[in-house]
Amino acid sequence: MFRIFLSKIRPPIPMRSLTYLFLLVLPLGLLGCGGSSASDDGAPASYVPPGEKDDYYLFYSGGHSGQVFVAGLPSLREIQEIPVFTPSPGHGYGFSKKSKKMMGEYRWGDVHHPGLSKTDGTYDGRWLFVNDNANNRVARISLRDFKTKQILGPIPNSMGNHGSSFVTPNTEYLLVATRFSVPLPKGTHAPVETYEENFNGIVSGVDIDPETGEMEVGWQVKTPPFNWDLGSTGKGPSDGWAFWTSYNTEMAHDSLEINASQRDRDYAAFVNWERAEEVVENNEGLNRRNGVPLIDPAEHEGVMYFVPVSKSPHGIDASPSGRWIAASGKLQPTTTVFDFKQFKTAIENEDFQGEFRGVPVVNYDAVVEGEVPVGQGPLHTQFDGEGNAYTSLFIESSVTKWKLPPWDKETTEDMSKAVTDKISVHYNIGHLVIPGSDTKEPYGNWLVAMNKLQKGRGLNVGPEKPETSQLIDISGEEMEMIEEDYTRPEPHFAQAVPADVINPIEVYKKENNDHPDARWDPENTGVERTGPDEVTVHMIAKRSQYYPDKVEVQQGDKVTFHLTNIEQVSDMIHGFGIAQYNMNGVVPPGDTQTFTITADEAGVYPFYCTNFCSALHQEMQGYLEVKPR
Amino acid sequence: MFRIFLSKIRPPIPMRSLTYLFLLVLPLGLLGCGGSSASDDGAPASYVPPGEKDDYYLFYSGGHSGQVFVAGLPSLREIQEIPVFTPSPGHGYGFSKKSKKMMGEYRWGDVHHPGLSKTDGTYDGRWLFVNDNANNRVARISLRDFKTKQILGPIPNSMGNHGSSFVTPNTEYLLVATRFSVPLPKGTHAPVETYEENFNGIVSGVDIDPETGEMEVGWQVKTPPFNWDLGSTGKGPSDGWAFWTSYNTEMAHDSLEINASQRDRDYAAFVNWERAEEVVENNEGLNRRNGVPLIDPAEHEGVMYFVPVSKSPHGIDASPSGRWIAASGKLQPTTTVFDFKQFKTAIENEDFQGEFRGVPVVNYDAVVEGEVPVGQGPLHTQFDGEGNAYTSLFIESSVTKWKLPPWDKETTEDMSKAVTDKISVHYNIGHLVIPGSDTKEPYGNWLVAMNKLQKGRGLNVGPEKPETSQLIDISGEEMEMIEEDYTRPEPHFAQAVPADVINPIEVYKKENNDHPDARWDPENTGVERTGPDEVTVHMIAKRSQYYPDKVEVQQGDKVTFHLTNIEQVSDMIHGFGIAQYNMNGVVPPGDTQTFTITADEAGVYPFYCTNFCSALHQEMQGYLEVKPR
Repeated sequence: MFRIFLSKIRPPIPMRSLTYLFLLVLPLGLLGCGGSSASDDGAPASYVPPGEKDDYYLFYSGGHSGQVFVAGLPSLREIQEIPVFTPSPGHGYGFSKKSKKMMGEYRWGDVHHPGLSKTDGTYDGRWLFVNDNANNRVARISLRDFKTKQILGPIPNSMGNHGSSFVTPNTEYLLVATRFSVPLPKGTHAPVETYEENFNGIVSGVDIDPETGEMEVGWQVKTPPFNWDLGSTGKGPSDGWAFWTSYNTEMAHDSLEINASQRDRDYAAFVNWERAEEVVENNEGLNRRNGVPLIDPAEHEGVMYFVPVSKSPHGIDASPSGRWIAASGKLQPTTTVFDFKQFKTAIENEDFQGEFRGVPVVNYDAVVEGEVPVGQGPLHTQFDGEGNAYTSLFIESSVTKWKLPPWDKETTEDMSKAVTDKISVHYNIGHLVIPGSDTKEPYGNWLVAMNKLQKGRGLNVGPEKPETSQLIDISGEEMEMIEEDYTRPEPHFAQAVPADVINPIEVYKKENNDHPDARWDPENTGVERTGPDEVTVHMIAKRSQYYPDKVEVQQGDKVTFHLTNIEQVSDMIHGFGIAQYNMNGVVPPGDTQTFTITADEAGVYPFYCTNFCSALHQEMQGYLEVKPR
Repeated sequence: MFRIFLSKIRPPIPMRSLTYLFLLVLPLGLLGCGGSSASDDGAPASYVPPGEKDDYYLFYSGGHSGQVFVAGLPSLREIQEIPVFTPSPGHGYGFSKKSKKMMGEYRWGDVHHPGLSKTDGTYDGRWLFVNDNANNRVARISLRDFKTKQILGPIPNSMGNHGSSFVTPNTEYLLVATRFSVPLPKGTHAPVETYEENFNGIVSGVDIDPETGEMEVGWQVKTPPFNWDLGSTGKGPSDGWAFWTSYNTEMAHDSLEINASQRDRDYAAFVNWERAEEVVENNEGLNRRNGVPLIDPAEHEGVMYFVPVSKSPHGIDASPSGRWIAASGKLQPTTTVFDFKQFKTAIENEDFQGEFRGVPVVNYDAVVEGEVPVGQGPLHTQFDGEGNAYTSLFIESSVTKWKLPPWDKETTEDMSKAVTDKISVHYNIGHLVIPGSDTKEPYGNWLVAMNKLQKGRGLNVGPEKPETSQLIDISGEEMEMIEEDYTRPEPHFAQAVPADVINPIEVYKKENNDHPDARWDPENTGVERTGPDEVTVHMIAKRSQYYPDKVEVQQGDKVTFHLTNIEQVSDMIHGFGIAQYNMNGVVPPGDTQTFTITADEAGVYPFYCTNFCSALHQEMQGYLEVKPR
């Protein structure tokens, strides 16, 4: 592909002028002068000029930062951080009573795989779900206000909630699987040397309330102590099913680097979640463990099947039609395409090559449509809705574009003919995302490569380098590299959706505020002693004053502030920092939040608005007087 | 100014091709066809293609996020977050023993004004200093590894460390002033109704060790309870001096929005820090308060002078020559230029218009060079080193470019002639930055406008909007708007420096590792009982294994992990997450860090590498076995 990069030396005339001039020049028939125009024909740019908006939201998982990062496409600019598992004083998250309670005892999470809610197999713009691999939780973010609304967990019996969060076509469930295995119930001790015997993995069906989005663990399926990796949910013919790959079917418990890479094939799990639901509904002799119905797939036929996959696989992705299931083994240079139709036939015919702990192992040859030689180190596959698949190659640091079945005879005889393009990314690519790839109708157009090691590619910021993303235009026959940007550690996957699918609110409307201690009139605010060591403050924030702006308490008092931001104007956020009291609230317009401190230090402590609000923002302050005991 | 924006509809051909084609077209003499080329002549672009690097580092203060954000110029892409006052599990910050100790009892900060270290009045690329307005601290970041090395504070006698951190020309001091006043020493209670009588402000000289950068409070100057706002340090003729504006010379203690906007003029403080140093060195009858020598400027002549400034000023900035001091009053449409030479003459001649609490108030007319009618709501001024100043206009949402003195007769007779250009930014601009503006030789070229309210300008992310920055090309006669990007809350100021001034390391070299519990050979690692309830683990992380990968302890043990990442390869970071133990370490190559947990929950808890490291990263794990008591 013919590629031209702008020189590092700044051009004498900015690009938008060039564009303008070029548009003037176009009619003059000069197009033929550059060989570049043909190959670049139809390729879009990533530049979104000041005042213009991006076309897509991109929701990155934030990895061990514990958060979600929201970027715009095509610019790749980060437009928001959504705090989920980690306190974030810039948003007052982890300082308000509500957010503290939601976070429980943990102050971080390891966010791996965001999943957008769906209706009829397409994104409905309601919620974003994310997992915490470390502390075995899932969270729900509302896309009405981009706020975390619920954190569920630690999920019982579940350790290493990595194969998560995969959303079914009508958001019936989040399906989540364990990366680690432990003796169950959690808290049981057994030596790791007894791993095969005493340790187990779990697949959980997290039930989603269709109205409120409220999550609860519906049921669990016990698995051997394989390390479940990534998964996806079925659709169309495979609706009702979900798929995970596993590494470590060796069931090694130490030096996994060596001991979990022994077998030539590992297993994927094909789980029939509709059947699991049925087992639970019919109460088919189930045990409950920690309050959750626990299904042993050996005892309940039809819940789980194993399918052999390439060595040490990472991703398994269902195509938009739901018929083709693509799994990649990172230590084998092919992506295997399973035909779900053949899989159904195989289980009907009991075409099994064996069983493992009572779970049938489907005959590999009966279900494989083909092995596409995508290149070295294939990990994950995304789909553009035009019959093409795109697989990330970790070892080659590339993305391979290939055609989904049905294949012509020439291709089936020489599977390399299925590969139609390949593009280099800087090493090493992990995940990649195409808008809507996991829906029945992907939006296509763009592919974002999430690269794992940058090693001096950007400005040097010392021994800890940022992560990088690259934007690839996939709207033409050939992929084209357009833009590169950086993120904090560490995106593992992302979801992208056209802007018009999401419809966020601008302010919290006064009439919807149901906080019992909300106040809207300065006359109803005040400081009240509500116990021998307890003071309650009803406070209002508005440009550019707090009511009241003096709060007098006794040393040792527990002081509860109910702060209402009575603004109804977009972006008119007020902060609430108390000097030397380790407190920073952030209250968006129309919201009421509750903050509590213990006034253990006597003296005078200013409180002030920490979030810029107006020309007189600096004057928005008050005093907490703590009288000595 | 003639401005053209690219249509939102993506152009059929990407801009870099257009640029290429345009360069082909140039010789054909078609340049005259577009009226835009003249006005845009010489203007650069912000696009940094994949694989290219930015030209400048931009260090944003992170406001109430508590961190520093590092971006590249001209792309505006964020390239790193430096955690300072807030835990950041993505960097393991706030989880290691060292970082926890450094943060003390606080889990957030309010970072306002970063200051780069200087040698001979120019940036030397060694350190970045930042302040915490909320908890009255300053921090030092090393630009060798982009890590926070020291947090000093809470500073004694100091409340609301906002007028901070201003670095003297050879990094002798950080000069910091209080925004809030309280009864001293801190911890004393007095009713705010006695504000004028009992409350005081403070200017502190934070002494910097020239070799190590270690900070300590050297001396303090007591001030009336004015709210000190922003400041700057002198250079050249004004070397040895520092300047702050104040709002609230009314000394109001409530409803500041109204009560602190009564007077037509407030005061700037001109502080002679060399004289303060001399007072302390000569021990001129000083009191010490909380261990710090406290100077009463009424008793020590020559330490502090007041200069009347425009109503409710915000910024005061010394020009590159050090002669012109520009102060802006946000409620008056002019920027006042003081002549430091005239100021020196005035104090020599005792040309005072009065005194306030024993501090001389210099005769305004004697020191003012001129009032430049920059426009509505002027806040801060930056300099390009070419004799031009750029002032942010909060109310007009613009930047005004104006000429520094000396002015010709025509200009002094009509000061509006000093104004040479004005550009709109989207509302509302607060700070702005030009690379090197506070040095004696600014680098110029770019100006970044930090805007405060975006109100629906970007993709809607709900009631909490991100902050925006805009990149303005100032290399030509007329300013030109180039690019826009977003940040988390909330940059208040920034510093920018050419990339080659900073020389960060790639890895921590083994030979420099002085951690007493570092280990480099798996044979020297292990788990040791070091007390009845204490276990010490010496552990190594390398691709893709921990040594040891099994740690057995008793329930209730305090377990200390000394983890050495023995890699010496760039970007080869290893994480250390312990499932359900609220622990995530991040150890860059060659570093050793110490983590402590109390093993209060029995059971088996996997630990694993949370920061992607290799193809077998997923296999990098081990088990913490906690045997029940």
